[in-house]
Amino acid sequence: MAQPPPSLMDKIVSLCKRRGFIFQASEIYGGIANTYDYGPLGVELKRRVKDAWWSRVVTQRKDVVGLDSAILQNPRVWEVSGHVGGFADPLIDCKVCKARFRADKLEDARCPDKPSKKPGEHHCELTEPRSFNLMFKTNVGPVEETGNTVYLRPETAQGIFLNFLNVMQSARLKPPFGIAQIGKSFRNEITPGNFVFRMLEFEQAEMEYFVPPDENDRWYDYWRQERLQWYVDLGIDPDKLRLREHEKDELSHYSTATADVEYEYPFGWGELEGIACRTDFDLKAHSEASGTDLIYFDPQTRERYTPYVIEPAGGIDRMALTFLIDAYDEEELEKENGEKEIRVVLRFHPRIAPTTVGVFPLVKKDGMPEKAAELEEELRIAGFTTFYDEKGAIGRRYRRQDEVGTPYCVTVDGDTLSGGVVTVRERDSMEQTTVKVADLRAHLEGALRNWKRPERVAPAGA
Amino acid sequence: MAQPPPSLMDKIVSLCKRRGFIFQASEIYGGIANTYDYGPLGVELKRRVKDAWWSRVVTQRKDVVGLDSAILQNPRVWEVSGHVGGFADPLIDCKVCKARFRADKLEDARCPDKPSKKPGEHHCELTEPRSFNLMFKTNVGPVEETGNTVYLRPETAQGIFLNFLNVMQSARLKPPFGIAQIGKSFRNEITPGNFVFRMLEFEQAEMEYFVPPDENDRWYDYWRQERLQWYVDLGIDPDKLRLREHEKDELSHYSTATADVEYEYPFGWGELEGIACRTDFDLKAHSEASGTDLIYFDPQTRERYTPYVIEPAGGIDRMALTFLIDAYDEEELEKENGEKEIRVVLRFHPRIAPTTVGVFPLVKKDGMPEKAAELEEELRIAGFTTFYDEKGAIGRRYRRQDEVGTPYCVTVDGDTLSGGVVTVRERDSMEQTTVKVADLRAHLEGALRNWKRPERVAPAGA
Repeated sequence: MAQPPPSLMDKIVSLCKRRGFIFQASEIYGGIANTYDYGPLGVELKRRVKDAWWSRVVTQRKDVVGLDSAILQNPRVWEVSGHVGGFADPLIDCKVCKARFRADKLEDARCPDKPSKKPGEHHCELTEPRSFNLMFKTNVGPVEETGNTVYLRPETAQGIFLNFLNVMQSARLKPPFGIAQIGKSFRNEITPGNFVFRMLEFEQAEMEYFVPPDENDRWYDYWRQERLQWYVDLGIDPDKLRLREHEKDELSHYSTATADVEYEYPFGWGELEGIACRTDFDLKAHSEASGTDLIYFDPQTRERYTPYVIEPAGGIDRMALTFLIDAYDEEELEKENGEKEIRVVLRFHPRIAPTTVGVFPLVKKDGMPEKAAELEEELRIAGFTTFYDEKGAIGRRYRRQDEVGTPYCVTVDGDTLSGGVVTVRERDSMEQTTVKVADLRAHLEGALRNWKRPERVAPAGA
Repeated sequence: MAQPPPSLMDKIVSLCKRRGFIFQASEIYGGIANTYDYGPLGVELKRRVKDAWWSRVVTQRKDVVGLDSAILQNPRVWEVSGHVGGFADPLIDCKVCKARFRADKLEDARCPDKPSKKPGEHHCELTEPRSFNLMFKTNVGPVEETGNTVYLRPETAQGIFLNFLNVMQSARLKPPFGIAQIGKSFRNEITPGNFVFRMLEFEQAEMEYFVPPDENDRWYDYWRQERLQWYVDLGIDPDKLRLREHEKDELSHYSTATADVEYEYPFGWGELEGIACRTDFDLKAHSEASGTDLIYFDPQTRERYTPYVIEPAGGIDRMALTFLIDAYDEEELEKENGEKEIRVVLRFHPRIAPTTVGVFPLVKKDGMPEKAAELEEELRIAGFTTFYDEKGAIGRRYRRQDEVGTPYCVTVDGDTLSGGVVTVRERDSMEQTTVKVADLRAHLEGALRNWKRPERVAPAGA
C-alpha cells in the first residue's frame, strides 16, 4: 500500500532529529511524554531567540529591566494568584479502557481501544468531568509531610509581582516601566502535543509592564503592535501572522482584555504569544494577602496608586518552532544532467540562524584546508558563529548548510592562495561572489545587515 | 551593647539586596528556605557569567557542542545512574525538639532549643541515622498513581549521556569531543546555606568530554588547568584559588579521580567547580539498561570503544557569588574637608560587570541631558551595556556606579557642547581622562580590552 507523503510537520521533526535541532527526551528509554531535548543546533537556535527577545524587550530599552526568579516559591503565592483554586482542566475518565480525556476537548479525542471511535461511541463508560489542577507538586525536606508541599511554577509572571517593590526601589523606577524574565515553567497537562508546541516543561519569556491606570489602553495598543512587529522584523511571513482579540468568555480570571499573536501552523492558527491586560489584580491580591503594600508612591507629589499591568507573554520553545516552520522551504532544482532534485533550505533571518558562516576548503589539499581553518578562526574570534567543513563534495557541503539555515558560506580555492580572494555563496539565491580576503569581514557584516526575506512559494507537503 | 561589625558576607548580602543583585525569594510571604531571586543587576551578572562560560567552553572551540536537555526525564535514567539508590544524605532526628540533622555534619550542628549546645548535649533524644534521597519527586498526569513518579534532575550530566549517540551522529563528531550544557538542577538538601552558595535549585554548567580511554589522563590534566585558568582570566584573585585532588574516600561512585577548583570564601575554602574522571561508568550503565550501544564506532577502521569521560562541572550561581565576593573592595578616601570616607567598589572584570558604561550629564541643564542621552543611545546601539543617570551630584553618581562595578563613566559637560570632548572616569583608579567624542568608542573598547586587575588590600570585615 502506498504511504501518504510526509506532512510538513513530519519533515520538520525528521530534519530536527537528523541535524541535531531537537531530540525526543530520554529516547533510549522509550521517551517521556511531550518532553524534548535540544541538540547542538537547537540550543544555538534557542540562544538566538532568547538573545533577540532580551535585546528588544530589555537591553535596548531604558524602561525595562530583567529578573530571574526561582521556580520554587512559597506555596502561598499560588493560593493568592488563584492557581491553586482555579488553574485546572476538567477531565473525564473511561472506566472500561482507563483512558483520560479533557472534557472540553472530548469532540477531538479518540478511544484508544478503537481509534475510529470517539470516547463514548465504542463500549466506553465515561465518568462525570472532574477538575484536576495543572501544577506539579513536590515536597521540600526529606519526608512528605503536610505543610511542606511546594509547586513547580506554572508561569514566571508571579515571580515578577513578588519582586515588584524590591525591583522598583533598587532600580529607582517609576511607572510606566517593565520587568522581564525568561525561565522554565511547568504544566501537568493531559493532552499536550504537536512537537515542542506544547510541553510539560517549557521556557517562558514574560514581561510585566506597570503603568498608571489611566495609561492602560494606550500601552495595551503599543505592546500588541510592538510584539507583532518583533516577529516580522525577524523574518516571519507577515501573511501568516495575525492579532486576535479574545472573546469575553476566553479571558482568564485576572484579565479584562487579551490579544493573541497567532501564527498559521501546519495544524492551523495557533497562539504564538499573548498580550494581556492583567489590571491591578495580582498586585492587589498579593498586597492584601502579604500585608505589604505593592503600590507606587511618589514622596514629592504624594501620588499613590496600584499600577495596572500589560503582559506580553510568549514561549521560547514555541517561538523557536515557529522560526523553524516559517523558515522551512523546498526548491526544485535542475541538475547538470537534467535530473530534478529538491533543495531543502531553512531561510532563517541571519539573527536567528544557529551558524552564520560556513568555511570550506574547495579540496582537501594544496594548502587549502590550512588557509580555510585560518580564516574560520579569524571570523570566529571576530564574533561570527562559524562552522568548518572539509568532508565531501563542495555542492554537498553547501546543501548541508542550506538545510540548517546558514546564510553564508566562504570557500577557499586556488585563487585564495594565488590571488587573495574567496568565494562567498549566499543561501537564499545560491549566488556566488568573489571577495577579497581583506574585505571579507566587512562584506559579511554588510550582507547580514541587509538581508531581506526572499519571496517564495509554500513548501511541498504543507 | 555594641553590635559586632558586619562580616564581609553580611555586607555583600546587604549590597545585593539594596542595589538589585539578589533578593530573598517570596520575601513578602516570609521567604522559602535557601531560595533566591536575581534582580535587574543580578540577572545581567549571571548572563555575563553564562556567556563567558559558553564562549570559552563551546563557541570558541571546535571540539565542543551544546545541548539543552529537559529537567524531567524518564525515571529509569535515575535508577541506572545510581541516583535513586545512592544519592542520599544520612539524617538524624531529635525526638524531643523535632529538629533534623545531617549525620555527617552533626559536629557542626546546634540544638534549636538551646543553640549553645550540640545535638545530644542538651535534652535531645537522637534517632539512628536514616538515609534520605536528595531528589525532588513529582507526578506526571493528574493523579498521584504508582508508576507516574518522576524526578527533578539533580544534575544536568545525565541528559548529556542520554543524547550521546544523537549528538555524536548528527554533529558528525569523533572523540575527543565534548557536549556542554547550562541548566537548572534541584537538590532537596537539609542543610544548605551561605546565601546562593548552596540552594535547593541552582543553575549548573557542565561539560562531558568524551575521550579514547588511553587519552584519559592527558585530558584530565588539560581540563583541570583550563578551568582554573578561566577564573584567573576573568579577574579572580589567583591567591584565593587552588586545585585540590579528592582523597579516595571522597570520590563519587562513578569516579576514579576528581579535583576541585576551590576558592577561599569568607567562610573558608569551598568548592567552586569539580573536574571529575567519570570513566565509562555512565555510558556503560545506560548501554546495558537501555539496550542501545552507547559506543564510538569507526566504520573505516572498525575501531570500537566506549569513551572515557572528563567532566568539568560548576554552578553558575556559585560562580556569580564568587565574582561578587572577589570583586568587593573598600577603600578609605579623604574628602576635601579632611574627613575620611569609605568607597565601596566592585572591581569586576569588564566582561563580567552588569553595566559597562555609565553616561551622565554634569548638570541637568544647558543641553547636557540631551547630549548625554544621545551619546548613551549611540553607545547602547553599538553594543555597550549602558546606564543613564542625571540624578544627584556627579560624585554620588560615580559612587553609585562603583558600588555596582561599572568600569567606566562618561560625563558630558560644557566642554562637550563647545569643544566636542567628554570626561571618561575609570572605576578602579578614579582617574579622569578627556576624550574626543569622535574617539569615545575606540577609547572605551581599548580600555576594556586592556583592563588589568588592580593591586589591593583585603577588604575590611573579611
